[in-house]
Amino acid sequence: MRILLTNDDGIHAPGLALLEQIARTLSDDVWVCAPAEEQSGAGHSLTLHSPVRLREHGDRRYSVTGTPSDSVNLALRKLFAEQMPDLVLSGINSGENLADDITYSGTVSAAMEAALAGIPAIALSQAFRDMGRSFAVAEEWGPKVLKPLMATPMAKRTLVNVNFPACAPDAVRGIRVVRQGFHDYARGSVVEGTDPRGRNYYWFGLEEMEHTLDRGTDLEAVAEKFVAVTPLQLDLTDHAAIGRLAEQFGG
Amino acid sequence: MRILLTNDDGIHAPGLALLEQIARTLSDDVWVCAPAEEQSGAGHSLTLHSPVRLREHGDRRYSVTGTPSDSVNLALRKLFAEQMPDLVLSGINSGENLADDITYSGTVSAAMEAALAGIPAIALSQAFRDMGRSFAVAEEWGPKVLKPLMATPMAKRTLVNVNFPACAPDAVRGIRVVRQGFHDYARGSVVEGTDPRGRNYYWFGLEEMEHTLDRGTDLEAVAEKFVAVTPLQLDLTDHAAIGRLAEQFGG
Repeated sequence: MRILLTNDDGIHAPGLALLEQIARTLSDDVWVCAPAEEQSGAGHSLTLHSPVRLREHGDRRYSVTGTPSDSVNLALRKLFAEQMPDLVLSGINSGENLADDITYSGTVSAAMEAALAGIPAIALSQAFRDMGRSFAVAEEWGPKVLKPLMATPMAKRTLVNVNFPACAPDAVRGIRVVRQGFHDYARGSVVEGTDPRGRNYYWFGLEEMEHTLDRGTDLEAVAEKFVAVTPLQLDLTDHAAIGRLAEQFGG
Repeated sequence: MRILLTNDDGIHAPGLALLEQIARTLSDDVWVCAPAEEQSGAGHSLTLHSPVRLREHGDRRYSVTGTPSDSVNLALRKLFAEQMPDLVLSGINSGENLADDITYSGTVSAAMEAALAGIPAIALSQAFRDMGRSFAVAEEWGPKVLKPLMATPMAKRTLVNVNFPACAPDAVRGIRVVRQGFHDYARGSVVEGTDPRGRNYYWFGLEEMEHTLDRGTDLEAVAEKFVAVTPLQLDLTDHAAIGRLAEQFGG
């Protein structure tokens, strides 16, 4: 099985090194194509106004001077002319990607880019919260969640979002398949400051958000020390609203 | 009614000027907060690694040195302390935002940012194709589509994506409420080149994509010269897959 790894923290990130270590236990044909620099918050963005560079870092290891989506896109078009990957794994992200934050997530977006290309994809993130920046849960539970996922056929244009809880590995209570939750609105903080030349600036922070731990959501599962597995799809249509709106437009 | 306008083509874009002209016929409390520069392809990205600047361009007109999501986010946090907007309009984009391209769209992402904040939002785009860069259809049909939409209550965390077809205004056949379509995969082109210093680069192009004009989709409606109205929502969960995956994990 040919596996392509990518992420949004960049090719030198420790979470990618761990993902590579796990992937090599699952396959002997593992490729890496990741952003040259950290791209957190990049969302599903493509670099259109400037060129990107592809750098070879060794056998089947590449970086791209662009976003996670750029990395997947360029890899699929330039590295795999003959045999496309069977699976794309994105991560392991430094920090959770839960609830509506996934729309900003470069980690999830890289998996979306693969899904759009018809390749099964899994995004993986390690929650930290107050636990320090430890990937210990991802290291122990990564193979336990990936093996069953890889054994399950995925529908076209779908992906899976996995989040490892912030706790000691032996405190993990298991794996839960859950839906995407929603944050109550508090889109981080905005810090106001003055630059060295006396001009005003704003800087977006990422403060802890208030949220309701609805039952059956990724937010609840991770808070309760479960590995959260959320299947995602790419049709954003609000199907329930189509009939109502059609009436409004007379038909 | 307080209306906030934004876009991804930047504060000086002609599509924003047209949107402002239309919005002023619908309300006398219209605000603009848009990116200082063109941000096409920015997707739902936030600027986290550097500060952003807010510049006042006149009465209720502001630009932000960042992405469309930055612009909405900063506007909602800094411009409207006392009374939030009742509606956010994003556009009118130079070029269509249809099918799975909406995940890359700064225009749609700005509307998503508003929807996440609980504010009704509508993204508007003018298809061009071979018709030159004319906003004539948006100019004539904009009010006809906005008035009914503004009269229809929108559920929380939903938005509407509107695309005006590329044709003469008198060739437009009406308004259709349709679902999001999907492109057959052909994620644009990648041009390979050599820079002035002899180094290799890649540049993503946006070539015409092959797609299937499935019935009832935004792609079909615009191809058949209808204004396409697509209600969107922000829950990406693949609900149909939850049960199947839960079985896989013994749950």
